[in-house]
Amino acid sequence: MAELRKDPIVGRWVIISVERGKRPTDFKMRVPAKKGGFCAFCSGNEYTTPPEIIAVRCDGSQPNTPGWTVRVVPNKFPALRVEGQLNLVGEGMFSKMNGVGAHEVIIENPDHNLTLSTMPLKSVEDTLLAFYQRIADLRKDERLKYVLVFKNEGDIAGATLEHSHSQLIALPIVPQLVEEELNNAKQYFERKNRCIFCDIIEQETKDRIRLISENEHYISLAPYAPSSPFETWILPKNHESSFEPDGRFSLLAQILQQTLKQIDKVLNMPPYNMMVHISPFRDEINEYYHWHIEIRPKLTQTAGFEWGSGFYINPTPPEDAARFMREADL
Amino acid sequence: MAELRKDPIVGRWVIISVERGKRPTDFKMRVPAKKGGFCAFCSGNEYTTPPEIIAVRCDGSQPNTPGWTVRVVPNKFPALRVEGQLNLVGEGMFSKMNGVGAHEVIIENPDHNLTLSTMPLKSVEDTLLAFYQRIADLRKDERLKYVLVFKNEGDIAGATLEHSHSQLIALPIVPQLVEEELNNAKQYFERKNRCIFCDIIEQETKDRIRLISENEHYISLAPYAPSSPFETWILPKNHESSFEPDGRFSLLAQILQQTLKQIDKVLNMPPYNMMVHISPFRDEINEYYHWHIEIRPKLTQTAGFEWGSGFYINPTPPEDAARFMREADL
Repeated sequence: MAELRKDPIVGRWVIISVERGKRPTDFKMRVPAKKGGFCAFCSGNEYTTPPEIIAVRCDGSQPNTPGWTVRVVPNKFPALRVEGQLNLVGEGMFSKMNGVGAHEVIIENPDHNLTLSTMPLKSVEDTLLAFYQRIADLRKDERLKYVLVFKNEGDIAGATLEHSHSQLIALPIVPQLVEEELNNAKQYFERKNRCIFCDIIEQETKDRIRLISENEHYISLAPYAPSSPFETWILPKNHESSFEPDGRFSLLAQILQQTLKQIDKVLNMPPYNMMVHISPFRDEINEYYHWHIEIRPKLTQTAGFEWGSGFYINPTPPEDAARFMREADL
Repeated sequence: MAELRKDPIVGRWVIISVERGKRPTDFKMRVPAKKGGFCAFCSGNEYTTPPEIIAVRCDGSQPNTPGWTVRVVPNKFPALRVEGQLNLVGEGMFSKMNGVGAHEVIIENPDHNLTLSTMPLKSVEDTLLAFYQRIADLRKDERLKYVLVFKNEGDIAGATLEHSHSQLIALPIVPQLVEEELNNAKQYFERKNRCIFCDIIEQETKDRIRLISENEHYISLAPYAPSSPFETWILPKNHESSFEPDGRFSLLAQILQQTLKQIDKVLNMPPYNMMVHISPFRDEINEYYHWHIEIRPKLTQTAGFEWGSGFYINPTPPEDAARFMREADL
């Protein structure tokens, strides 16, 4: 019989098919081989992107020329723009607002053929440092309430360019999904005086059935009620409400790259989405919310049932997924 | 500049790219030609499905033999099963429940090559009647709280079989997305003593810019803050909280088929998802919620930004979509 499980953070139920649990080899999705050709994100083509915002350059090279290891540029076709005033306007019974915000691309490495799981660990670390620096800069703009850092790997997961990159969108509103997580975490804190994520980490560390890996400061695990197969979270072990891995970027890079290597090994380089959830700018340092990275291999399709209900059907119990991940021969 | 718009019913914001609005020809998705081959849903193969629950048969033919025009069968690989007790169980800090429910398939027509937009109108009407009859039967099971009727057309939209069919899943919990709609509609009713959907219908009928079509009892429109391009809603004009089109099945079939024909014409037979949103069984007759059908052509991809934020980026303003739909030369 299937099981209905409730995610205690977003309050969403998922259907876990315990009896016909899909094994990794049942999933056919994988990122196609890179086609190559002209690429605006490759070293030497810097002139084809909008001027860079920041870059990691160790050789004293000039902005917008080769020599960088990580490069952040505005998205050429931004969903939101930094110019303009925020105006909330009514249209009869409806509400709208100017599309003020920021949309940036983090090019993780100059080499077209590398991915976040195959590039040197130092590039992963520099990418995380770039996330941190961009968040720190964007929080100064008082019109902005939240930054979502995310990554789409593979066209099936929504990537339009194959050169490995992450993105960020800064928003003038705290997104609904984040508000829901915040509200549930706040309610839990009010009842128990403890962070719900800290309690999950404690239970998962004790049970060990959904635990995937850990190092001195970070833990990776399969969540109890994942919306998709092999969904994996990475969290700091100690309570941290926002993304501030001071002095621990290399440990975070290590567990992130290891997790992606495990996913690549177990699922044969699947497309995936990665999202970084942090506290909103208005309340960055708090006791109830715990920043984390969510990685979702794109193995199943979202269809009418999911769109209509917000329920998800997951054919792989997270206990099985965690075991396959732990046993991956890297 | 892009616009942020808020859906007043689910409270979700979407980003509408007003300036680079995509035209229908910019979307490349379409349902591939049917491959044919053996099909369990075709007339003559009734023995290969689980025994039928109900069928429309006008010729006195026997169950599970040819002669039907619409046929409802249990899903062979159900997400939930009708057997068993509902038990809410704790696992440490987590909650789970037995997967009790129902998962059925509504085969809309015996002909493999027809779709809901090309089949005789009578088949569409019989399909809607089957939805109604199944909902009426499932509400008698006290373990069930909600039925979601939905349809996936085309493999890109999640259909695993190409023979035109809808599905329903009956759930022991009211889904989160429906709860959110219900709560927002209830709050609106408490403030204004009016149904929010009735108010939307009134405004859209007056403005006419997002209105697509109407007949004596039903209206189709592009919602103000659609999460995807060419999203279309069909609603009864008068207040109805649950799916009870007594005496009006033919009018509903007419506007549904016309809407699907418009979508096929404008977007060249795209994959789509269709969802029927009704009030939950515990409160079927109420003043605040208004049942409706949502149709979403599957033209864009849901990726990291959407998964991480619950925001959607929609490249086609609904005013443009409604105009293309109205002007479709059927």
